[in-house]
Amino acid sequence: MSKTRTQPSARLRIVLAPAMALGPGKADLLQAIEVTGSIAGAGRSLGMSYRRAWTLTEALNSYFAGPLVITKRGGSRRGGASLTELGRDVLSLYRRMEQRTNSVIETELAALQCLRKADR
Amino acid sequence: MSKTRTQPSARLRIVLAPAMALGPGKADLLQAIEVTGSIAGAGRSLGMSYRRAWTLTEALNSYFAGPLVITKRGGSRRGGASLTELGRDVLSLYRRMEQRTNSVIETELAALQCLRKADR
Repeated sequence: MSKTRTQPSARLRIVLAPAMALGPGKADLLQAIEVTGSIAGAGRSLGMSYRRAWTLTEALNSYFAGPLVITKRGGSRRGGASLTELGRDVLSLYRRMEQRTNSVIETELAALQCLRKADR
Repeated sequence: MSKTRTQPSARLRIVLAPAMALGPGKADLLQAIEVTGSIAGAGRSLGMSYRRAWTLTEALNSYFAGPLVITKRGGSRRGGASLTELGRDVLSLYRRMEQRTNSVIETELAALQCLRKADR
């Protein structure tokens, strides 16, 4: 029986401030908001509580020069949501950094993979 | 009064297995072991408990094809420690990935910095 082995992969976290980072979690959340059209739907699609999805969104919105996510219905926190132009810019900057990173570390990732124990 | 603002910076984490990653913390630990010549000293220099430094070292040692860190005195867990050749290879692979990452994302980091709120 052969066991599937995990391929080493990179996760890029951008530390923006001491208690604020932009990593795969927030990037996936922004992307899921764009896809699902709501914060609740994005949270569900990522297995994240609504509360957590909302908290992360608020953190992003208050860090940048303007909101990255706007909710469509004025009063309702559970209404539809979408990315602003700034939100799409931030997401696309992150994805570009992620792609560039992956493209320049391929050799080292492969080397790390060769250095692990045979049963890993 | 001007407040020092955090420059956005990248942290690279290599996910080796579902519960095992190599990131800045373990890389700094390996480097500190090489510098201080002991796991306890490395932990102290990083503000990390001896227990945590030891646990991370053990995790690294059991993941790779051989130990990355060897303790110098046979019986004593608190004796001197140093990196093996494999340990130095893994550390240098990680540092190279980190440098390459930083060199390819400069433009995007600068752009992210421009997009943050004025008081950040």
